[in-house]
Amino acid sequence: MARSAIGRLFAGLRCLPVGNTQLQTQCSRWSSERTGVEASMFSHKPRDFSLPNPSWGEEMKRLYKHYNLQSEEAAGQGEDGEWWTRLPSYNRSLKYATGGVYLSKMIQSKARLFTRNIRDPGAAFEYVLFFRNDKQRCLCIFQAGHLLEGPPGHVHGGAIATMIDTVTGTHASLLSAPVMTANLNINYRSPIPLGSTVLIESTLDKEEGKKKFISCKVSSTDGSKLHTEATALFVSISVSHLLRG
Amino acid sequence: MARSAIGRLFAGLRCLPVGNTQLQTQCSRWSSERTGVEASMFSHKPRDFSLPNPSWGEEMKRLYKHYNLQSEEAAGQGEDGEWWTRLPSYNRSLKYATGGVYLSKMIQSKARLFTRNIRDPGAAFEYVLFFRNDKQRCLCIFQAGHLLEGPPGHVHGGAIATMIDTVTGTHASLLSAPVMTANLNINYRSPIPLGSTVLIESTLDKEEGKKKFISCKVSSTDGSKLHTEATALFVSISVSHLLRG
Repeated sequence: MARSAIGRLFAGLRCLPVGNTQLQTQCSRWSSERTGVEASMFSHKPRDFSLPNPSWGEEMKRLYKHYNLQSEEAAGQGEDGEWWTRLPSYNRSLKYATGGVYLSKMIQSKARLFTRNIRDPGAAFEYVLFFRNDKQRCLCIFQAGHLLEGPPGHVHGGAIATMIDTVTGTHASLLSAPVMTANLNINYRSPIPLGSTVLIESTLDKEEGKKKFISCKVSSTDGSKLHTEATALFVSISVSHLLRG
Repeated sequence: MARSAIGRLFAGLRCLPVGNTQLQTQCSRWSSERTGVEASMFSHKPRDFSLPNPSWGEEMKRLYKHYNLQSEEAAGQGEDGEWWTRLPSYNRSLKYATGGVYLSKMIQSKARLFTRNIRDPGAAFEYVLFFRNDKQRCLCIFQAGHLLEGPPGHVHGGAIATMIDTVTGTHASLLSAPVMTANLNINYRSPIPLGSTVLIESTLDKEEGKKKFISCKVSSTDGSKLHTEATALFVSISVSHLLRG
């Protein structure tokens, strides 16, 4: 059963154009960023949610252009330059076994990545992730939509936690084999108004065996206001661990 | 400006049938549970998302009946008995000012509580919250829909954080004036399969001035598996603090 499930897990999985090409790394990205699945897995070409759309405000577009330009400019500079690579982002994951039994077909076919589960542009999480070529830092431009409300007019603490988990988890999975979030410790400093654009930056603090310690901060785009700061711990796991649930 | 905003904030606000009737407490619940706004605020009667619907599985229905029965049975027992009260849950918050300026009218009119932003029953967060009459504990029955995916077949760490913030934040707001989440420290022990029902229990650990320390655990409904445990810190704030953003 486990072998069969692993076979299904890997069937059709192909590597991102960026990052490690080892099989271990291929299954390390299970958010859309983490899975890095390609269009060929789907019956039709999936939408890349990290590309600009009409809902993006001026600040979101400006920052996207800024980091994308650094990436494009660096293309001819080799691997020594400090440049950023954009990660594509889809809303589908893999058909998968859990806890030793397969999920119901209905759940399998309808499952969508939490941060990309609403197709209406601008309504919820609008974000794009970049990582630096030495993989010591990730950067996310995040525009918070009106469906993320917590305190009136402000982003829900859970939505902020979701973006922190997404950015740090993607960062950890770029570094090694499949990882699971073990701990998130989040300090909320200042609420984020709905509709605003913020920067989320993650930094690798240290690696100890299977553990990756990553810190993260959410700030205004001009750097003048710190909204949230956090630390995160991820642990590399085996595929069989995942299948056991 | 601030006075006007405060006036608008309180206009139409009425107290829940449960809890403190002071004005301070009225605005302390800004998730739908926290705001506790009544039908009269809206042009039509809002849907109470915490009531059973056809998407609820057997376990969700069984537990709802169990705690609801304890609540109903206790109705004649006076305030000394250990009984539970269900909290209604809507998907709209208040029109509000933020950061000294009003949100755009479009965002105001379209804003929805993050945990109730999808109307399709069973697709995302299905949950119902109860609190014990001494307000020392809250309990939430949570059924995780297919749109909450993180690791394939399992609930996103951010979705779990969202439910923990919701339960502990509602708990803190039952105890006192408006509160803000100051810290969430979450340890993820075991992943939660999509489609499953779990229990989220919060306990008041201590109160120190404006601070409320609450612990929380997410476990399987039979108590055999601990999925997640967390501590949360909430700080009482003034209305003017909220308005400053």
